[in-house]
Amino acid sequence: MTEPNRERLSLGVAARLARYLQVLIQARKMGKLTLSSGELAEYTHVNSTQIRRDLSGFGKFGKRGVGYEVASLVDEIREILHTSGQHNIVLFGAGHLGQAIASSDIFTDHGFRMVAIFDSDAERIGERVGGLAIRPLDDVTETVASESVVAAVLAVPAHAAQETADLLVDAGVRIIFNYSEQLLQVPPGVIIHTSTPAVDLLYALYFYLS
Amino acid sequence: MTEPNRERLSLGVAARLARYLQVLIQARKMGKLTLSSGELAEYTHVNSTQIRRDLSGFGKFGKRGVGYEVASLVDEIREILHTSGQHNIVLFGAGHLGQAIASSDIFTDHGFRMVAIFDSDAERIGERVGGLAIRPLDDVTETVASESVVAAVLAVPAHAAQETADLLVDAGVRIIFNYSEQLLQVPPGVIIHTSTPAVDLLYALYFYLS
Repeated sequence: MTEPNRERLSLGVAARLARYLQVLIQARKMGKLTLSSGELAEYTHVNSTQIRRDLSGFGKFGKRGVGYEVASLVDEIREILHTSGQHNIVLFGAGHLGQAIASSDIFTDHGFRMVAIFDSDAERIGERVGGLAIRPLDDVTETVASESVVAAVLAVPAHAAQETADLLVDAGVRIIFNYSEQLLQVPPGVIIHTSTPAVDLLYALYFYLS
Repeated sequence: MTEPNRERLSLGVAARLARYLQVLIQARKMGKLTLSSGELAEYTHVNSTQIRRDLSGFGKFGKRGVGYEVASLVDEIREILHTSGQHNIVLFGAGHLGQAIASSDIFTDHGFRMVAIFDSDAERIGERVGGLAIRPLDDVTETVASESVVAAVLAVPAHAAQETADLLVDAGVRIIFNYSEQLLQVPPGVIIHTSTPAVDLLYALYFYLS
């Protein structure tokens, strides 16, 4: 393994590495030991020349006719992205979406550990979802501090999203993954990522229709 | 309204327009009549100079101190993206995730109409979810043809995703929005968009940590 580059990556390179990582992790789960740049290209929609260039920039060269070793490339990209290790996250909202997220391994596969689920419905406190008991909102600040939570996933209705975001920001959360399409106001330094499935679908439709 | 540009947009422009559209649609829903390039920048993470350049390229100029008219800009971007009108979609999977999608307006807000929900569980056929009765997989081909369905949303477990995708491709669906992280094999001409919340979160984490 080469020494990871400690300089800040460009936005484009970081975004592509994250996409390679997603495919590599899924391939590893499916039992694949190697993956060629052609296969990576097919699944990421990045062309294979660009993929080879990005990875060779970090000293990774696929073997001709074999490809890249999946497991070592996963580790290396995590190093390069400085995101090795586990990162604790919390989930807000135990409705259908929250339950789907809590019971899937979509975040855990990528090194995130869900440490708590919160819901504003007092009647559901204590109910178990995906192995965790639902907690009241009053516990947020203590949980964020004691578990060093950096990121939170919002699976709450749009009308409750801003209020929940405010609570999370006050508690010290710095990255919010927003599954509602609500436009959230947060102070500088807090990163909001909004899930936009309809926009992604529109975008695909544009390329299909044109 | 200017005549929409009928040339194919670059990937970057189309992607940014889709992001502006998402924010504009949400702003409209929140009752905002105008939005400045600064506000658009804040919510889309595209800088305001770029936004003004993109929109002025289509003849749209915000009024100084007022901004862009939300409703007309929504219509115009839809025209430019050739995605005006309604597009019929189908949903696969009536588990927690499928139910969350079916009961939200995340797709309908953007001009998609969900015309059917399918599930492989014979015991759930006929059960109503988000106003639609769950249908058996046998009905897929007929539904896709009779409702001119171009796109499908997959909210099925990873192990069932490939099989479902095959069925959809055979039925004539050309765009698949995949909520499982399963790597799907499809023939050329079929567009797969995979939802990657964990990767998006990793990417945000990278920028937070570096």
